[in-house]
Amino acid sequence: MIRKDETICAPATAPGGAISIIRISGQDCFEICRKIFFPHDSKLVVSEQNGNTIIHGEIRNGNEVIDDVLLSIYKAPRSYTGEDSVEISCHGSPYIAGRIMELLIKSGAVTALPGEFTQRAFLNGKMDLSQAESVADLVASMTKASHRIAVNQMRGGFSAEIRTLRSELLRFASLIELELDFGEEDVEFASRDELRGIVMKVKKLTDKLADSFRIGNVIKNGIPVAIVGKPNSGKSTLLNSLLNEERAIVSEIPGTTRDAIEDSVIINGLEYRFIDTAGLRDTSDIIESIGIRKTQEKIMQASVILMVDEISEEPDIINSRADAIRSMITGFDKRLIVIINKIDLGEQERMNDLKRKISLDIDDSLIFISAKDHTGLDKLRNKLGKILEKENLAQDEVIVTNSRHYEALVKVSESLGRVIEGLKDNLPEDLLAVDIRQAVHYLGEITGEITSDEILGNIFKNFCIGK
Amino acid sequence: MIRKDETICAPATAPGGAISIIRISGQDCFEICRKIFFPHDSKLVVSEQNGNTIIHGEIRNGNEVIDDVLLSIYKAPRSYTGEDSVEISCHGSPYIAGRIMELLIKSGAVTALPGEFTQRAFLNGKMDLSQAESVADLVASMTKASHRIAVNQMRGGFSAEIRTLRSELLRFASLIELELDFGEEDVEFASRDELRGIVMKVKKLTDKLADSFRIGNVIKNGIPVAIVGKPNSGKSTLLNSLLNEERAIVSEIPGTTRDAIEDSVIINGLEYRFIDTAGLRDTSDIIESIGIRKTQEKIMQASVILMVDEISEEPDIINSRADAIRSMITGFDKRLIVIINKIDLGEQERMNDLKRKISLDIDDSLIFISAKDHTGLDKLRNKLGKILEKENLAQDEVIVTNSRHYEALVKVSESLGRVIEGLKDNLPEDLLAVDIRQAVHYLGEITGEITSDEILGNIFKNFCIGK
Repeated sequence: MIRKDETICAPATAPGGAISIIRISGQDCFEICRKIFFPHDSKLVVSEQNGNTIIHGEIRNGNEVIDDVLLSIYKAPRSYTGEDSVEISCHGSPYIAGRIMELLIKSGAVTALPGEFTQRAFLNGKMDLSQAESVADLVASMTKASHRIAVNQMRGGFSAEIRTLRSELLRFASLIELELDFGEEDVEFASRDELRGIVMKVKKLTDKLADSFRIGNVIKNGIPVAIVGKPNSGKSTLLNSLLNEERAIVSEIPGTTRDAIEDSVIINGLEYRFIDTAGLRDTSDIIESIGIRKTQEKIMQASVILMVDEISEEPDIINSRADAIRSMITGFDKRLIVIINKIDLGEQERMNDLKRKISLDIDDSLIFISAKDHTGLDKLRNKLGKILEKENLAQDEVIVTNSRHYEALVKVSESLGRVIEGLKDNLPEDLLAVDIRQAVHYLGEITGEITSDEILGNIFKNFCIGK
Repeated sequence: MIRKDETICAPATAPGGAISIIRISGQDCFEICRKIFFPHDSKLVVSEQNGNTIIHGEIRNGNEVIDDVLLSIYKAPRSYTGEDSVEISCHGSPYIAGRIMELLIKSGAVTALPGEFTQRAFLNGKMDLSQAESVADLVASMTKASHRIAVNQMRGGFSAEIRTLRSELLRFASLIELELDFGEEDVEFASRDELRGIVMKVKKLTDKLADSFRIGNVIKNGIPVAIVGKPNSGKSTLLNSLLNEERAIVSEIPGTTRDAIEDSVIINGLEYRFIDTAGLRDTSDIIESIGIRKTQEKIMQASVILMVDEISEEPDIINSRADAIRSMITGFDKRLIVIINKIDLGEQERMNDLKRKISLDIDDSLIFISAKDHTGLDKLRNKLGKILEKENLAQDEVIVTNSRHYEALVKVSESLGRVIEGLKDNLPEDLLAVDIRQAVHYLGEITGEITSDEILGNIFKNFCIGK
């Protein structure tokens, strides 16, 4: 259900800061504010102000003063939503924000649904659908890489590419459909060679974008890392040491607190997410008696497996454990890092012996650490940070991070594959046209040129309120 | 140490919302923003804009786009701090806020200290000290009553009263000191009768304000409530039932989440804070074997004592327990509420019997409940809500909530007491003058007309950053 006539309101800031912002958007927003906001300069009238200006005054409920606030005024179409909008900047008490929300609703506004401000921005043509989706990604971005992709997408880099592909296909679809109108006559408005060239070009680009989803997903959601090994090998000490170093780094960023993302570290602008660490949170990992099936599940979900063993362990046993783990690895893009812990207890000779006797596959690595003393952790961070280096993360490359976009791109590629086959087999125009139209349709779904209430509902329900 | 030349910056919103605000204030703020902010309308120049206007543009670090933002521009003296100021409204990702803070600092700003924005507002004469202190109270206010007092104080009601008293005393101090200049001559510029009248009037008002601190403190910090009783009487079920009802009520306020104030309920706009509930958090309160000394401590801290007994308990035992508790009560303003729980198990006859046999003091109450079935909880809430009613909380009365103000008022009252005694004993002018000057001094400390770096430091260190 898409509402257009209601004036919506919601807090746009989290509770707990020095100031809170309440957003209001819709045709009645100035009229609603007039009922509860009283400018210190009583000659001022909210609705008569220019857009992009700020007024100082009081929010009042009758004679009761609720707060001294600033009112930012935006006039359609020069606002985030494209509608008349107001932002109330009040003192950051949840009580005050609650009272102001109550007054707004009593005066005729309704509480905004999740993402409703951004949905209105889309519906009013302020941004296309893929740009709107990037707003949620941007707010959620925690690393340099995920932030960069979201900013690129918000600025329309991705949409522009999709729209170009789409309009080329659209032109050919129209020409082929024109041929259909001539029925029996043997005309060919759309050069088959040219068509084949275009379709192959579009399919190549589509496949490249779809391929980028694997890395895009990793950048957006973090690289899943599993820590496995027998009890007492020091898995939990390793986890805690990595997390504590991370916390020390984060706390140096001035004036901000990092959101509590438990169990992840950021290396080289990418997030590494330790999966299923419930049993590892306690420093005494004796309690963890993880079964083989549980280990297998963990390895299946991970992109990187850290196998931890003690320096006192026999090399044969380490090798057989590594073999067992390799046998559980499915998928070509997983890395195994064998970690020999507790080197504070062993001598150099023992390390050399292990280096000789532990056998590694081509992509595997061997690292000696003392999780307790933080020895070797830099080497491990370094190794983790290089895992995606091969993938050539170019600064301006368009990368797909959204599974909805990925699914649409796969469907485009399938349709275009059928067009190429059809051209080879000299299929009639109408069959070609169906597949080209389908590709055009799915490309349009990405940018929102083609859309439905259901698609919109699914996208915006994942936004937070006030966005 | 008070900094004036630095341009300060800090996030003013909590991490986690749809948008974040970063505040910048100081003489270089436009110059600093020029280095990192690029308006979409490239003809615009930040420093040439009018005050109270908003510009749309990008924050960039070289070629890297950090975010699409709105810049609110405030020109001295029309800003919160009284200085040139800017607020950057960006997407609410802690990563983005962190990057923007980094860029601001690289461009010459420094991270603001706690309360530094409000401290500058005070130093630049935008508000007096008591108003500045009310800003922190306002942000922290969680109830209707604490909010009302903070708003009144912010609007200067309290300061105005103090300033009037002070200037009257000041006039007399000057007149008396003039008499001193005439040394041996027997002049009397200040009529002793008039002086006595003024001093008594000021002392009466000062005492009234100081007295209001007891209730002000309760309004600001909540009314401490102790729940006591033998194990298994249902103390924890009662606590949980009250807290759950509270949560249900709070979640109805649209669009806000209540800050996690554990173990408190709001009744009639006042907060009731259950003290020392650690042993009661678990529903099975069998584990709690609270000693007599611990109970005594709890009762000492509380203003209201809920003594819980089961309906099956013998009236004699209930009476002796209530007597024991009354003997621990010191201070005139404590209330005992005897609660008979588990009435779901008993018959009406038993209740009537207990009503007859339980003896109550004048301020005590007896309430029958079933914490399990939520029966009688309304009666209890009602009783709690009326506890402060006698105190006549008038809408516009000035109430002291700040212990610094309270201490100053007590000192004023002591000094004025000595003046009154001195007048009675015909003390010489110079001794009277010392005490009047002292009273004037302490009144000035409240509003900040007299202040020191140390006082300022103590006040603002309790603010959060960005305030």
